[in-house]
Amino acid sequence: MKLLRFGPAGSEKTGMLDADGKVRDLSAHLPVLAGAALTPDSLDRIRALDPASLPLVEEPGRIGACLASVPNFFCIGLNYAKHAAETGAKNPEEPILFSKATSSLSGPFDPVVIPRTSEKSDWEVELGVIIGRETLYVSEEDALDHVAGYCVINDVSERAFQAERGGQWIKGKSAPTFGPCGPYLVTADEVPDPQALDLSLDLNGERVQDSDTSDMIFSVREIISYMSQFMKLMPGDIIATGTPSGVGLGMKPQRFLKPGDVMEVRIAGLGEQRQEAVAAD
Amino acid sequence: MKLLRFGPAGSEKTGMLDADGKVRDLSAHLPVLAGAALTPDSLDRIRALDPASLPLVEEPGRIGACLASVPNFFCIGLNYAKHAAETGAKNPEEPILFSKATSSLSGPFDPVVIPRTSEKSDWEVELGVIIGRETLYVSEEDALDHVAGYCVINDVSERAFQAERGGQWIKGKSAPTFGPCGPYLVTADEVPDPQALDLSLDLNGERVQDSDTSDMIFSVREIISYMSQFMKLMPGDIIATGTPSGVGLGMKPQRFLKPGDVMEVRIAGLGEQRQEAVAAD
Repeated sequence: MKLLRFGPAGSEKTGMLDADGKVRDLSAHLPVLAGAALTPDSLDRIRALDPASLPLVEEPGRIGACLASVPNFFCIGLNYAKHAAETGAKNPEEPILFSKATSSLSGPFDPVVIPRTSEKSDWEVELGVIIGRETLYVSEEDALDHVAGYCVINDVSERAFQAERGGQWIKGKSAPTFGPCGPYLVTADEVPDPQALDLSLDLNGERVQDSDTSDMIFSVREIISYMSQFMKLMPGDIIATGTPSGVGLGMKPQRFLKPGDVMEVRIAGLGEQRQEAVAAD
Repeated sequence: MKLLRFGPAGSEKTGMLDADGKVRDLSAHLPVLAGAALTPDSLDRIRALDPASLPLVEEPGRIGACLASVPNFFCIGLNYAKHAAETGAKNPEEPILFSKATSSLSGPFDPVVIPRTSEKSDWEVELGVIIGRETLYVSEEDALDHVAGYCVINDVSERAFQAERGGQWIKGKSAPTFGPCGPYLVTADEVPDPQALDLSLDLNGERVQDSDTSDMIFSVREIISYMSQFMKLMPGDIIATGTPSGVGLGMKPQRFLKPGDVMEVRIAGLGEQRQEAVAAD
């Protein structure tokens, strides 16, 4: 299934795609796409519905982030070898974990707002993993049973805030609109192998990131099992699993977002995003 | 006002203390103490109630974390000079920001579960700030207008997970029960100066942390304004504002939690916590 949220920011309704790729209104059956709605039982109930029986949404308008009320927006850093190299880092020996403020989440076509004082805003296409069950001390073997689905993430990052302001990366990862998420939550049954997905990002029509998820240093399975040794993952948590090479930080000369720049962000089978960069008020 | 959540984990009701310090059931007026319930208008509506008119709760039983559905559980690191020194760090030039998984939140009297493989679980009494309004680009002058209230936090930390496993601190801060929070959300009107609060932590009856919030390197006002340059703070966000000296990491020899240890955690005017450390299953 491809589930989504459509409508004005803050009052999105829940929808699903039908066999023709049209949006059907799922709100009567699932008012909020979040948390407990993502458990296997809940998704099975949705799967049992006939999409053709749901109201057709002729004009869905804006598409929101594909999840509401996200408990945690986690990220894995430096998880593709060529990206680690382009940032000047070595391959990590264990997954590097950090988080984004959940208020950074935005719709896949919403503008990306370059923060005040920013000079180094950058792009990062990433496979997003959405957790569907409470997950603590899970084995690698069982880890994918805890995934509700997958989505496209642009882990927008301000490199000076991230690395030049003291301490931890979260400062550079958390501005409003720094987390375009969606358009769809694609349920795990439609993604038989999360390590075999092409992903790319075009900047103003030029392909700058182009890789596939087989190049991850730590697989989705390994990341979930590893994280669950340190914390309990919750239904609705998002894990952005790292970006391949081709970010602005790694270019020579370096290149960062300016107002008017357009990012097109794709993962095979998960859909496509498009954001225009704009200046903060 | 002193607001709280009482009842079994996951099905807490909302309460407030009356003039005699007894719990009154607020659930009919405020089903969930979270997010939009913390805005100034919402708190004014609660304040207009006569506590004596609410049902008396003779046996509140377990007290939960004083907030539900927390969007972000932020922390400031090394924010007391003597604590920075005991960890071997210099005073930071800017606030150090990191986060805890929101699934670490627990009740103020719930046991603290020492994670599997942990050898360095440690304690940290901290003043918790609870945000009451959307907060982006706020000045230091206006920052305290964005605070709904304050609470006691024990920022329980696994030092090996935090510092010896690669990358960022969140790994050592996020285990279940690593965030005792409460017992009360004390509304900001009852805390005229958040920089004049005594705070302490006793381990097995021995005072190991003993300081006051005037010793913070960055004040609550400065922290909120600073963070709001990088992200939008949301109603219900918690900011743990750093711990004073006296953690186990800084002792000679170092001392870490073992099953049976008891922590008593206090901030003047905000209440008292008590946790017993237990081993993970």
